[in-house]
Amino acid sequence: MSSQPAENCELTQDERDLLFYESRIVRPVKMKVPEFKRNEHLRHVIFSRQFSVDTLEYLAETADKVRMLSKQRSGQDFLINLLHHKRAMLYFTQPSTRTFLSFMSACQILGITCNEVRDPSTSSETKGETRFDSIRMFSSYFDLIIMRSKLAKLAESCAYLMNDLEVSGNRSVPIINAGSGADEHPTQSLLDIYTLQRTFQFTEAGSSPMASRLHELRQLHPELTTGLAGKTYGFCGDIGRGRTVRSLASLLAKYEGVKLIFIAPDDPTLALRDDLRHRLQDRGIAISEVEHFDEIVDGVPVIEQLDALYMTRIQKEHDSPAEAEKFAQIDLSRYKLTRGLVDRMKVYAPILHPFPRDQHFGEIPPEIDNDPRAMYFRQARNGMWIRAALLASVFGVDHQISRFFEQQYSEWHHYNEDDVWAPSLPKGPLRP
Amino acid sequence: MSSQPAENCELTQDERDLLFYESRIVRPVKMKVPEFKRNEHLRHVIFSRQFSVDTLEYLAETADKVRMLSKQRSGQDFLINLLHHKRAMLYFTQPSTRTFLSFMSACQILGITCNEVRDPSTSSETKGETRFDSIRMFSSYFDLIIMRSKLAKLAESCAYLMNDLEVSGNRSVPIINAGSGADEHPTQSLLDIYTLQRTFQFTEAGSSPMASRLHELRQLHPELTTGLAGKTYGFCGDIGRGRTVRSLASLLAKYEGVKLIFIAPDDPTLALRDDLRHRLQDRGIAISEVEHFDEIVDGVPVIEQLDALYMTRIQKEHDSPAEAEKFAQIDLSRYKLTRGLVDRMKVYAPILHPFPRDQHFGEIPPEIDNDPRAMYFRQARNGMWIRAALLASVFGVDHQISRFFEQQYSEWHHYNEDDVWAPSLPKGPLRP
Amino acid sequence: MSSQPAENCELTQDERDLLFYESRIVRPVKMKVPEFKRNEHLRHVIFSRQFSVDTLEYLAETADKVRMLSKQRSGQDFLINLLHHKRAMLYFTQPSTRTFLSFMSACQILGITCNEVRDPSTSSETKGETRFDSIRMFSSYFDLIIMRSKLAKLAESCAYLMNDLEVSGNRSVPIINAGSGADEHPTQSLLDIYTLQRTFQFTEAGSSPMASRLHELRQLHPELTTGLAGKTYGFCGDIGRGRTVRSLASLLAKYEGVKLIFIAPDDPTLALRDDLRHRLQDRGIAISEVEHFDEIVDGVPVIEQLDALYMTRIQKEHDSPAEAEKFAQIDLSRYKLTRGLVDRMKVYAPILHPFPRDQHFGEIPPEIDNDPRAMYFRQARNGMWIRAALLASVFGVDHQISRFFEQQYSEWHHYNEDDVWAPSLPKGPLRP
Repeated sequence: MSSQPAENCELTQDERDLLFYESRIVRPVKMKVPEFKRNEHLRHVIFSRQFSVDTLEYLAETADKVRMLSKQRSGQDFLINLLHHKRAMLYFTQPSTRTFLSFMSACQILGITCNEVRDPSTSSETKGETRFDSIRMFSSYFDLIIMRSKLAKLAESCAYLMNDLEVSGNRSVPIINAGSGADEHPTQSLLDIYTLQRTFQFTEAGSSPMASRLHELRQLHPELTTGLAGKTYGFCGDIGRGRTVRSLASLLAKYEGVKLIFIAPDDPTLALRDDLRHRLQDRGIAISEVEHFDEIVDGVPVIEQLDALYMTRIQKEHDSPAEAEKFAQIDLSRYKLTRGLVDRMKVYAPILHPFPRDQHFGEIPPEIDNDPRAMYFRQARNGMWIRAALLASVFGVDHQISRFFEQQYSEWHHYNEDDVWAPSLPKGPLRP
Repeated sequence: MSSQPAENCELTQDERDLLFYESRIVRPVKMKVPEFKRNEHLRHVIFSRQFSVDTLEYLAETADKVRMLSKQRSGQDFLINLLHHKRAMLYFTQPSTRTFLSFMSACQILGITCNEVRDPSTSSETKGETRFDSIRMFSSYFDLIIMRSKLAKLAESCAYLMNDLEVSGNRSVPIINAGSGADEHPTQSLLDIYTLQRTFQFTEAGSSPMASRLHELRQLHPELTTGLAGKTYGFCGDIGRGRTVRSLASLLAKYEGVKLIFIAPDDPTLALRDDLRHRLQDRGIAISEVEHFDEIVDGVPVIEQLDALYMTRIQKEHDSPAEAEKFAQIDLSRYKLTRGLVDRMKVYAPILHPFPRDQHFGEIPPEIDNDPRAMYFRQARNGMWIRAALLASVFGVDHQISRFFEQQYSEWHHYNEDDVWAPSLPKGPLRP
Repeated sequence: MSSQPAENCELTQDERDLLFYESRIVRPVKMKVPEFKRNEHLRHVIFSRQFSVDTLEYLAETADKVRMLSKQRSGQDFLINLLHHKRAMLYFTQPSTRTFLSFMSACQILGITCNEVRDPSTSSETKGETRFDSIRMFSSYFDLIIMRSKLAKLAESCAYLMNDLEVSGNRSVPIINAGSGADEHPTQSLLDIYTLQRTFQFTEAGSSPMASRLHELRQLHPELTTGLAGKTYGFCGDIGRGRTVRSLASLLAKYEGVKLIFIAPDDPTLALRDDLRHRLQDRGIAISEVEHFDEIVDGVPVIEQLDALYMTRIQKEHDSPAEAEKFAQIDLSRYKLTRGLVDRMKVYAPILHPFPRDQHFGEIPPEIDNDPRAMYFRQARNGMWIRAALLASVFGVDHQISRFFEQQYSEWHHYNEDDVWAPSLPKGPLRP
């Protein structure tokens, strides 16, 4: 499986294993993406840039169907039997309660039985087992590995290991990356995109698909259209270290005519990193970098022109002592949302946050929670639906979901929607 | 969601959140109970005094049906499909293997899928997330939150949070208190009551409902009746710190003509606390406080007059150094059961213990285990059935259980009872 | 339950509990085996020597059926409903990821719901609960206890406790030993035997039962027969401390005409122990002890005559400081497999390893993994099937599996075999 060149003889087998896949890892994304597919289905989910706009639309449609089926007992029973013969391993050596529970829930909705290994010290690694031996053990017992690790590129390497096993006629299972080091967290960006997709449908989920809402909004915003293209997205806070910001910005860049505004301190740790800036510019994306919400861009204060705002937590736990000292000099209160700022936002503009938010810093104070634009709790629940859609696609039962949904749809007259998506917009400003 | 008055500006958001519900928490129990119900069904289960005698009887009947259905494959299949579309979060930041496993089992009997968060250090709290944000996250993913915490009143606050979310049209799920600080553990008192209910039916479960047993017992105890009313209950050991004693005594006080005898050292830490004594006296309950089993109350030694005995563990782990020194002077051996004491008890009087018992102190030595009055292992299994009944009621499937049970009952002639409840009473003394 | 003779008054109850069963534990195996059976079915699974050759054959047949049914959705659906009303406790106070996950998987294949207690410090033991009280708690809630402990004989004691409860009319559940101290790990030896059974069928699983393979192999090895009897088995590495070696050797000794060769350093810690040597010799087994693979036994170098090779990890974590110093003087590299050694092995001889292997020592370097003789990954998956077969037998649903399999078999023409067992033998040497 692994090469052992003479010059590597001082390395552990774990180190040699990672080196073995180095040459595949450094290839351009476009060369790699086909290896993570099988017959138009996703096989391994490793990085955000795997998802084309078509895939994102398709997954959102599937997630909508799963969500709506989950509101009826007949739909729940259908879903829970879909994959009850499959068993997943959630291998989370980097802790994350939220992502972990979201994946668990997504699996359970489809009937997948979950198993977990979360504390590496209890595993066989303490007896000298390599990571690849652990992964092959999991692939012996389970039908899917969802993994989260501090080690960048480990999930990608494991996908190549599985592909090699497949080629050699051995047992091989799909790998889903639930966060690998600082570089990728593809399912988080999926749920961010899905939340924007649902919001920018401008329909009230659960009602008929006829959207009177957009019609109303156009009285104030005549240019407003549905969908993600052509809109202005703000990202506020810890842009430099925010893995979710990087992934979401990369995905938004696939849509026509988007404009991205980054609101962050002018500091090399916290501001937009060069690699992402260059990648966005290469794609011809309009980007602006500002230090606060009141700066004027294209003649309008930033806060008043955003179609959506993505807030983030300042990741203090990663501060070096020198950084902590430096940041104490910066006025970080500019990167907190206030009632006054929210009041100036467009009435339809959703506020997102990857969560958890930090009660001590207070980037989103709880008095915002009841504002109809606050989408961050809904966003978490969306994560469960889009992950369920992803799993359905990986296991190839997405078409079954569509067929069952269409049968049911013609039978149902109403959805019992406990989960109304749309902000009940403040009526005043809309009908002046 | 939360107020932020000027004088609270030094508090964390977590502290402000708890203060926000303070005014609701301090209301009298009677005012609060209706908020924990929906259409005669329990919605949130927060404290023991929520349960009326009618509710206790109804839950016991449901538990009996669940227990009997579980003895047949057809009943098991019915139960396991009842709630297989529901997913529960067991949020146990205060550890408890026994209560945890009992709730897990109760969920699994009804098909509910369980998820758990037990170690708060792995959760998002380390990233500054508030407790309420964590609870809302759980309510996004799951259909029920069963929580145990060191923090008194946290479960009650979470129930109010859920009610507020419900009112504002947001997603909201039931909260079940599995122990909050030193104050409440309502499902433990449920299982204690259920064990007494089953014992004082004086029937052999699994046989026909015609009770020849009571008839026999009345030859010795002509006044003996079925049910909990009119009986004498002894509580022995760590009365002051025993949360289970407090809850059970409060529930027994709802039955007519009960008499409660507390057997504990005359020490402010270990003896009956003033608040409970006053509450019981206000309800007109006859209570006695004695220092050992041989004291004479109403002309009879305590041990010989008890209809039921509730033993407890001395909670040494909560001793202050001063208390530990003081308790070393007390003859604690008086609070251990012995073969000789048990021989003097009424032949039908069940011995209960909330478990675990302490092998080093030995409040119930193992040689008592085979006595027919030893009910403490059965009591643990009863906890599973009564919790399943409670969950069925919270999710509104209790009527389905009754209907299915009645159908089956007419079909079955015998129950294959692996779980005979009744002490096979020593025959000698009954037929002299 | 437990005696408390005067001379034991200084012992804890836990110590008295173990002493209570001492007299049953010291009986000869033959006297004990019947107590672990009920009507020809296994009830408790405590040690390897419980398994007769007939039982081993029967379990292997059942495992084959479970494995083949798992390849089709209809078979999966059948299996997952077989025991979905049963709930297991995996009580693993001695950590083992691999054994734990294998049992979890086996349970899940049959629909058994799993619960776990893995960290003894979170359990009631910290409140002074005895082990037997914990086990009785588990038996109150669950239908099966799978236990792994550092304490030798604990599983056996628990089986006696369950038998005593059964006799006295109390609830009692099966006990499965998943490793107790240094002495027994019966299900590991089951999977080792099952892997050898599958290999020595010389058929390709999934294809028709007509074996052309053996015919081909006999051109080179005219004496070759199917089955485990009459073959030569090599064990290499840490023989003295290898619990799996002890168990497997004891089972192989039940087959006719086997020859066992132990390849280990001549050191009292690492070499074959006297008790096992005597037990094997008493059964008339031909054994050889050598220090390296090139030693000549019966005129042939060991490595060239083996029909199967069982590699093990040197258990450094158990070295005393004196042993560590002594072992540093030994040339341990002799106990590592190399490409050159494998090339000299018989083409059909499987290489097994109980896993995990040690990347730092390197007893099996990864370049062997692609050799068709490398069976160690398949061996892990076999563990899941044979454990599922064992559980099916304990719960008495093995006959249902056989009946369903026979129905299906007549309907299926091909198995979709993702799990081809047989090494695709190097063609050259077979057809010279």
